[in-house]
Amino acid sequence: MNILQYSPDEYKRLIESFHGSAAPGMLIGGIMVDAALERLNTAQLYDAICETSSCLPDAIQLLTPCTVGNGWLHIVDLGRFALTLYEKDFGKGVRVFLSADKTAQWPEVRSWYLKLKPKKEQDREALTDEILEAGVGLCGFQNVEVPPLFLTKQSKGEIALCPACGEAYPKNHGPVCRGCADQSPYLSVLDGS
Amino acid sequence: MNILQYSPDEYKRLIESFHGSAAPGMLIGGIMVDAALERLNTAQLYDAICETSSCLPDAIQLLTPCTVGNGWLHIVDLGRFALTLYEKDFGKGVRVFLSADKTAQWPEVRSWYLKLKPKKEQDREALTDEILEAGVGLCGFQNVEVPPLFLTKQSKGEIALCPACGEAYPKNHGPVCRGCADQSPYLSVLDGS
Repeated sequence: MNILQYSPDEYKRLIESFHGSAAPGMLIGGIMVDAALERLNTAQLYDAICETSSCLPDAIQLLTPCTVGNGWLHIVDLGRFALTLYEKDFGKGVRVFLSADKTAQWPEVRSWYLKLKPKKEQDREALTDEILEAGVGLCGFQNVEVPPLFLTKQSKGEIALCPACGEAYPKNHGPVCRGCADQSPYLSVLDGS
Repeated sequence: MNILQYSPDEYKRLIESFHGSAAPGMLIGGIMVDAALERLNTAQLYDAICETSSCLPDAIQLLTPCTVGNGWLHIVDLGRFALTLYEKDFGKGVRVFLSADKTAQWPEVRSWYLKLKPKKEQDREALTDEILEAGVGLCGFQNVEVPPLFLTKQSKGEIALCPACGEAYPKNHGPVCRGCADQSPYLSVLDGS
């Protein structure tokens, strides 16, 4: 079973080099992206929605033109292991999810998906084998439509210089940038070189 | 001027294949990541914070082990073109930002950074030349410390099956998953195949 143009071994090397390890979520994610692309008219431009921030965004970024940084991958963290690819003209798309029902006959997959045992007790080899054997049989599919908000790139609007830190930021964030308002993630900041 | 192990041409090809185009933000981003890595003790494990969702996350994902999907890249969208790499033991890190002051002598960079003219009037070649000539001279540096929240992986906790959609989700999200509560990004959902 290939994932797009990659054999399982090639895909494993690809995800190891980008994601750091051949995590089960990356393997299932690759199968899900492949299945979505098969059902989408990819002659049209498309974007992606990912409903989790775990693993799956990386499978999308590796296997489609959609990345976080180019704005074509939207992470809407609903905590569900699901992704949608949708065409950008009218927002019609295909949602693929890991189906709990369909994991019933695959004990290692089910155990991983529902976190039924600690990671260190996982039989990674059996889990990988089950994923490759079950393949697209683990997936559910829906036809979805996304709202206009997802069809056009949201402009940052006018850029201002923050009077507090001196850095550029979108003026519509307020009189100072968010970092100088109350959203800084840092405990301390000292000038460096 | 190389960006890590890549010549400018090699890096350009790399970002075209992943990001889709050799955007100015990807070029400056590469220089910023390179500069941060030079100042960090990379013998230790490190994570990344990116303060914008535009371009810069992709430079981080391509040039460091930190990706959105493996949880080592945290996007905290403050709208500032800045990134931090920090070691994971004590949270000490290096913040690199595009300095508005330092763009003063680079008119095309300044115009791009502050959006002083429409994209179609940009002189992309002159902009690229300026970025490569100015290099790390466009960057400001700070030493920062991040709070404990950023030092350990946040567990999803127990997994439940959503009584509405039947999919798995983190139980601590509530009695139904966020998609079945009020956070669905879809206008319509129909079973497909």
